Amino acid sequence: MTSAYQELSRTFQRLSRFGHLGAIAGVDMQTTMPPGGSQARGEAMAELSVFMHEVLTDKRLGGLFDAAQQESLNDVEQVNLSEMQRAWQQATLLPASLVEAKSLAGSRCEHAWRQQRPANDWQGFSANLKEVVKLSREEAQLRADALGVSRYDALLDVFEPGMTSAQLDQTFGDLKSWLPDLLQKAVAKQQQTPIAQPVGPFAIESQKQLGLSVMKTLGFDFNHGRLDVSAHPFCGGVPEDVRITTRYNENDFLSAMMGVIHETGHARYEQNLPKQWRGQPVAQARSTAIHESQSLFMEMQLGRSEAFLQHIHPQVVALMGDQPALALNNFIRQAQRVKPGFIRVDADELSYPAHVILRYEIERALIEGEIEVEDIPALWDEKMQQSLGIDTRGNYRDGCMQDIHWTDGAFGYFPTYTLGAMYAAQLFQAVKRAIPQVETLIQQGELQPVFDWLQQNIWQHGSRFPTQQLLINATGEALNPRYFRQHLEQRYLSE
Amino acid sequence: MTSAYQELSRTFQRLSRFGHLGAIAGVDMQTTMPPGGSQARGEAMAELSVFMHEVLTDKRLGGLFDAAQQESLNDVEQVNLSEMQRAWQQATLLPASLVEAKSLAGSRCEHAWRQQRPANDWQGFSANLKEVVKLSREEAQLRADALGVSRYDALLDVFEPGMTSAQLDQTFGDLKSWLPDLLQKAVAKQQQTPIAQPVGPFAIESQKQLGLSVMKTLGFDFNHGRLDVSAHPFCGGVPEDVRITTRYNENDFLSAMMGVIHETGHARYEQNLPKQWRGQPVAQARSTAIHESQSLFMEMQLGRSEAFLQHIHPQVVALMGDQPALALNNFIRQAQRVKPGFIRVDADELSYPAHVILRYEIERALIEGEIEVEDIPALWDEKMQQSLGIDTRGNYRDGCMQDIHWTDGAFGYFPTYTLGAMYAAQLFQAVKRAIPQVETLIQQGELQPVFDWLQQNIWQHGSRFPTQQLLINATGEALNPRYFRQHLEQRYLSE
Repeated sequence: MTSAYQELSRTFQRLSRFGHLGAIAGVDMQTTMPPGGSQARGEAMAELSVFMHEVLTDKRLGGLFDAAQQESLNDVEQVNLSEMQRAWQQATLLPASLVEAKSLAGSRCEHAWRQQRPANDWQGFSANLKEVVKLSREEAQLRADALGVSRYDALLDVFEPGMTSAQLDQTFGDLKSWLPDLLQKAVAKQQQTPIAQPVGPFAIESQKQLGLSVMKTLGFDFNHGRLDVSAHPFCGGVPEDVRITTRYNENDFLSAMMGVIHETGHARYEQNLPKQWRGQPVAQARSTAIHESQSLFMEMQLGRSEAFLQHIHPQVVALMGDQPALALNNFIRQAQRVKPGFIRVDADELSYPAHVILRYEIERALIEGEIEVEDIPALWDEKMQQSLGIDTRGNYRDGCMQDIHWTDGAFGYFPTYTLGAMYAAQLFQAVKRAIPQVETLIQQGELQPVFDWLQQNIWQHGSRFPTQQLLINATGEALNPRYFRQHLEQRYLSE
Repeated sequence: MTSAYQELSRTFQRLSRFGHLGAIAGVDMQTTMPPGGSQARGEAMAELSVFMHEVLTDKRLGGLFDAAQQESLNDVEQVNLSEMQRAWQQATLLPASLVEAKSLAGSRCEHAWRQQRPANDWQGFSANLKEVVKLSREEAQLRADALGVSRYDALLDVFEPGMTSAQLDQTFGDLKSWLPDLLQKAVAKQQQTPIAQPVGPFAIESQKQLGLSVMKTLGFDFNHGRLDVSAHPFCGGVPEDVRITTRYNENDFLSAMMGVIHETGHARYEQNLPKQWRGQPVAQARSTAIHESQSLFMEMQLGRSEAFLQHIHPQVVALMGDQPALALNNFIRQAQRVKPGFIRVDADELSYPAHVILRYEIERALIEGEIEVEDIPALWDEKMQQSLGIDTRGNYRDGCMQDIHWTDGAFGYFPTYTLGAMYAAQLFQAVKRAIPQVETLIQQGELQPVFDWLQQNIWQHGSRFPTQQLLINATGEALNPRYFRQHLEQRYLSE
């Protein structure tokens, strides 16, 4: 006889398989599809979403959850059951009409934004955004009522289960107390050393070879994944077939290469999620922030470290050609350059948290109803002035209209970027304690011990443990921003 | 209130959208997917098939068909209703257990065949094939009982609705009365003129440029499709996003180019299926044979004609480089070369029907129970000797083990290749009557009138008319092999 647990597992396996098709169609859409295919593809993807939502919100599942709780399950099955139930609750919380209205409002806002942003048209954009905010507040309220937390905390929980704005206030408050000063000092320090700009063009084919070579160094499994090109770099696909992308600029190979390193971090996590539970929620990545911690571990902790840059420097010169600006010291300076600017996605690791904290503070107030859409530009200007000394008045395009997240109604996502950066620093510190000679190993390109540590402590666990528990198991303590600070001070201020 | 017809339309639209995702995942599998992704992809595709079969065989549909027949429907809706009902009947005819058993036996047979064919292992192969034949006979019997026709005719009906073995016997009998003689004369005639072999290597990138250029000449819509690479050329995707592929051999650009022309024929049909009924069965291609008629129209009627070869010759020389073997006359001789051989997929248009008729005669006797799997090799040898004068004794690999069709249980498919070739010849003859100066136009690359004719007479109709009616509307008569004979005599025997 099939147990309730088995029936639930079968349902989530089905969902995973349908999700596989959606993921591949999604990758194709970003990398391969001709423009004229977009409408039909959009309709097919929407049909799949509706169907998967139906399967996930099937009323019968409620009874199965009750029955499965009476069954004798091992540790992993119990966690899997609670992850399944969490997914089911998150889905059933929202009436289908709200899901649809939000999806439509998001599509409309995003579609118009693609024209409005280049036109700097805040008036037009804010009219659409108001509708998205209104529906996101409704969603937040329903989630808040169910969880017994505040509206914003309820949205945060979607991306980083268990995280609260109280903890964010404390953590980000700590960052704000030392980061602006550190940033200023780092900029001043870097201004003392001239930096030469590498001169292109750097052939796309050579840049691709460099990307593939770095992926190999970082242990990417090419039997279960590949590198393609898209307008915005991403990591997609499924654990058995992970697709990462980058974009090439003939005058700047470093940006494509760092994009590849970042996405390889996401990819290795996906490729090494526990194989024995594939298709089940417990085998999925723990959270958005833990996922980001893996990409930032590869990019910021490893990829931009002196030791790693030293190791790949010969490959870089071999493929990009020799020139004075590609001398080792200048190459490292390039990769560690600090330069506050308008745009989050172009930000260095010292300015990045300022972009995130600003968005966190604004989106939280917005969802909690403390401010309205009209208030955003003034707040944005004020906070950019405070944190990065940048004037964005009237420049909506490079200010509050630069991101796609709010446009799509993904409130609660932004904090995961900086949480990921802090997790990554804390993890790398633990690696250093576990492997004291790690810098020498990295310099020699012997990265296997680092990957083994990640496999042992993060990848193989999937969603087995709550985030903070995962972090405690791996590093001996819960999130502590101190390691991030140490890392930044060491990299940007030490002589 | 939603009518029964509307509800049925909605169901088939859903199926079409799920089919879209399956089609794209299928294309990705052949063109892009890394090897390690195949198991998970196979499982996801199987999950989709099972689900789509469930939707299509939903018992509720029976009542909806009854109700819809009472509703007031226009002409197109009536045809669409009957096409929907046909799809439903074809699916419900077979018990799920037989569908599954056949799919498993086919997979097993095909999987082993990939090793057995190179090893020339007929013993091993025939053991698996017997199971496939047994299940195909069961399928044929169920279909035969429902349709009131013979077992083989019931399978034929899946690929070419309305076609019967009685008509095939007559048509193929006609071909057999004149084709061997024509083939012999053509070979003798060609032996009088020496032919020079172009010498490679021809750069893959240049071959790709040539393919894209020819696709452009043939009106391929790059906003709704693209060219990729795969082990075996195919046309896949969906009408809004048609993916064609070819494969490149550095020493033979003609094969890749002709593959592109062939698949472009399939693609233009798909891209021009009626847009106003998209997602409904009436908007689908009429049949396998009509689909093949469009690819062979492009490849054989147009692509290998002197006029077309003259038109593209300058592009070919520009991209492949000049050499004596690429002089116009020799280039034409290359493209029209007749050379009987073992392998169907490599056959010229004069030998091709012999390959098909042989397979038709064997598979029909096999399905009707007149012969058994053990009898195949001897029959194969005998028929190859008769028709092409080729000895295949003991050479199973290049004989009865060369195709994937039986392996997969696709009995009834083979005849559509030669039906397609005959339809194509008949259609082109009608084009010549409608546009007397067509050869001059082709030579000048002015192909729009030809495409307009195809659009008017074939593409825009989808499945609106039964095949023979479509042909009568387009050409004034039902299938008549005489046009195929005229075409072959003209191309291969005239001075």
